[in-house]
Amino acid sequence: MNALLRKDAETILWKSIAAVQPDAAVKRALQDLHPGSGRVFLVSVGKAAWQMARAALDCLGDQVDSGVVISKYGHIKGALPRCECFEAGHPIPDQNSFTATARAIDLVNDAGENDTVLFLLSGGGSALFEQPLIPDVELQGITGQLLGCGADIVEMNTIRKRLSGVKGGRFAEACAPAKIFQVILSDILGDPLDMIASGPACPDTTTCADALGVAKRYGLKLSEQAHACLQQETPKRLDNVETHITGSVRELCAAAADACSSLGYEPVILTDRLDCEAREAGRFLGAIANTHAAQGTKRAFLAGGETVVHLTGHGLGGRNQELALAATPLLAGISNVAVFSVGSDGTDGPTDAAGGYVDGQTQAKLDSKGMSIREVLAENDAYHALQAVEGLIVTGPTGTNVNDLSVVLLQG
Amino acid sequence: MNALLRKDAETILWKSIAAVQPDAAVKRALQDLHPGSGRVFLVSVGKAAWQMARAALDCLGDQVDSGVVISKYGHIKGALPRCECFEAGHPIPDQNSFTATARAIDLVNDAGENDTVLFLLSGGGSALFEQPLIPDVELQGITGQLLGCGADIVEMNTIRKRLSGVKGGRFAEACAPAKIFQVILSDILGDPLDMIASGPACPDTTTCADALGVAKRYGLKLSEQAHACLQQETPKRLDNVETHITGSVRELCAAAADACSSLGYEPVILTDRLDCEAREAGRFLGAIANTHAAQGTKRAFLAGGETVVHLTGHGLGGRNQELALAATPLLAGISNVAVFSVGSDGTDGPTDAAGGYVDGQTQAKLDSKGMSIREVLAENDAYHALQAVEGLIVTGPTGTNVNDLSVVLLQG
Repeated sequence: MNALLRKDAETILWKSIAAVQPDAAVKRALQDLHPGSGRVFLVSVGKAAWQMARAALDCLGDQVDSGVVISKYGHIKGALPRCECFEAGHPIPDQNSFTATARAIDLVNDAGENDTVLFLLSGGGSALFEQPLIPDVELQGITGQLLGCGADIVEMNTIRKRLSGVKGGRFAEACAPAKIFQVILSDILGDPLDMIASGPACPDTTTCADALGVAKRYGLKLSEQAHACLQQETPKRLDNVETHITGSVRELCAAAADACSSLGYEPVILTDRLDCEAREAGRFLGAIANTHAAQGTKRAFLAGGETVVHLTGHGLGGRNQELALAATPLLAGISNVAVFSVGSDGTDGPTDAAGGYVDGQTQAKLDSKGMSIREVLAENDAYHALQAVEGLIVTGPTGTNVNDLSVVLLQG
Repeated sequence: MNALLRKDAETILWKSIAAVQPDAAVKRALQDLHPGSGRVFLVSVGKAAWQMARAALDCLGDQVDSGVVISKYGHIKGALPRCECFEAGHPIPDQNSFTATARAIDLVNDAGENDTVLFLLSGGGSALFEQPLIPDVELQGITGQLLGCGADIVEMNTIRKRLSGVKGGRFAEACAPAKIFQVILSDILGDPLDMIASGPACPDTTTCADALGVAKRYGLKLSEQAHACLQQETPKRLDNVETHITGSVRELCAAAADACSSLGYEPVILTDRLDCEAREAGRFLGAIANTHAAQGTKRAFLAGGETVVHLTGHGLGGRNQELALAATPLLAGISNVAVFSVGSDGTDGPTDAAGGYVDGQTQAKLDSKGMSIREVLAENDAYHALQAVEGLIVTGPTGTNVNDLSVVLLQG
């Protein structure tokens, strides 16, 4: 193993992960918050709601008047000053979701035009933050019909936004005339805002005509009340919302590029939305490494995203481990290159590793142990192969989840 | 279609292909030839032997004393001044291969230390240029044993170089004390010199001990004569050879980068040895395009190599067409990006197209025709899908073959 490259890989991955911790991400976003003369109300929703709220309270202290925090069961880690904390159902909303959401609406209904609603949103918000406009049982029935008839996710959301009092920009309407400062901790590739928790503070791009078209196309059975909801337009424009996306895979890449720079590697960000087959991405990155190895430039090529694995075997591994292993043959015998790939949550597939690291010596080590990369990948057993050649990267749970980072390091 | 991007794509691909034509490539290499006071003998071997020899004669005229040209049946296009032209067996050497090779050896045996052998080598040379040191029948038998026992290509060549009077650097020995100016037209990824025609003018990195080890490992049955050959060392160092590799996929990429620059695109060469699954490479390049589209920089990302396709359907297509089609969803609706991919020989798969071009409007056109990219790729039917949306690139046969070029164009 090239000890220097391995050390640099660890430095880069830890700095990148630190930059997308909910705490760090919220604090960075709040540098742009200038709440003005009024009160600040905090509404924090999602799997990271408690951490995000705590980070905001750390930053803003007494500036926060009061707040509502809604997370999954088991995710509220203690009391927070001036906040009511709720745990609720995920991925299926339950009565606690509705009760907690109603409390949040009560809170912001009280806000005036000089006030600010600090709205912190993380993954899982769609189920945790809900106010159905029709009876819950009927809502579940319509969801079932949509799933059964083959409607796609856009069609589903076109209907569901209109059956909700908070989705599709309606929470922002409820906050008016107060301003909303929205901080989104994103784990979705490419950051499509209205997909994250169905966009409580995002203008809706779908129309009533779209919704009625979907209902007609699939012959949905709807009560009169539900049918009336589909005819209620969602907001198409919101003037009271300022949105900061943070903790996204884009920030993970940017932080990794910064970390590379500070170690002397000239960084090239290839993409922040890689979504192809993991092992093929590994071959592509290996080819990049191989091509540039002899050029003598200290450089790093970075890719963020979430690759996929199609299981054909019964081994142990994950997409980052497969990516790294597949790059190995293209680095064989080259002394100044490495490829590593890690999941930012510290968990790659059903393993205790975050990902894999390989360099020019890895192929020879695998050969000496009689391991064939082709056979290992056919068995989806990258974990044991990398374990045998000291190629596993183990971080433990990192407390964040903004997809994966894959890096080619060229020592120059 | 974005007419400007499509036009730029055509400009880039034609300039790139022109740069790797055998004629252009040989003439470029010969700019570095300074033959000195003696005679110049020409030996040209391979599928492009006739074109390469003609280009050299165009350049050097009367400077060439005499020559031998050896190509496949049907590949000699006419007489060449002061040269004997031979057609011979490929991929299996035949008596004509041996006769022609013997003539080449006669020619260079006559050369003195002030003379120069201009050795022009293209694909197919391994069969066309051969002087077996054992009876042909036994050579074929040994090759059969090696194939049957699962020996890899390195092991096969370790044996075969020692059973040949011209491979593994021995032709260069035969030329001494004359100097050799070797021009290699490469179609092999990464240019491993000793793999091209088994390296008649390249030092051999394998040893007699390696060869005897292979013979023992697989229990090869060898005559006394063959066994003696394995104990004859090949040259480990050649002081009389100057090598120019030309027409390689690396030059294809470099020419494409130049063409991009002259159109105002800042070029980034990712790799010149891409070899992953075509459609996954397309998704990767599409992700790169998508990530950089909004940055407003006029830029091109280039990849050379030879991707692969695993057939699952019965449609019509090729690896370049599949690559372009797979990139399409990631460009959808983006006005300033395109991805194109072409085979430098003008033939992509069993089709009359060289490759494919897609841009931000391609997805909508496919949608309007009810074509699903997923289904098209499952059927390996990229040709008909691209044909329906004006996405085929058709060049006709180009007269060269140095693998493929794939490009992301960002209009800025």
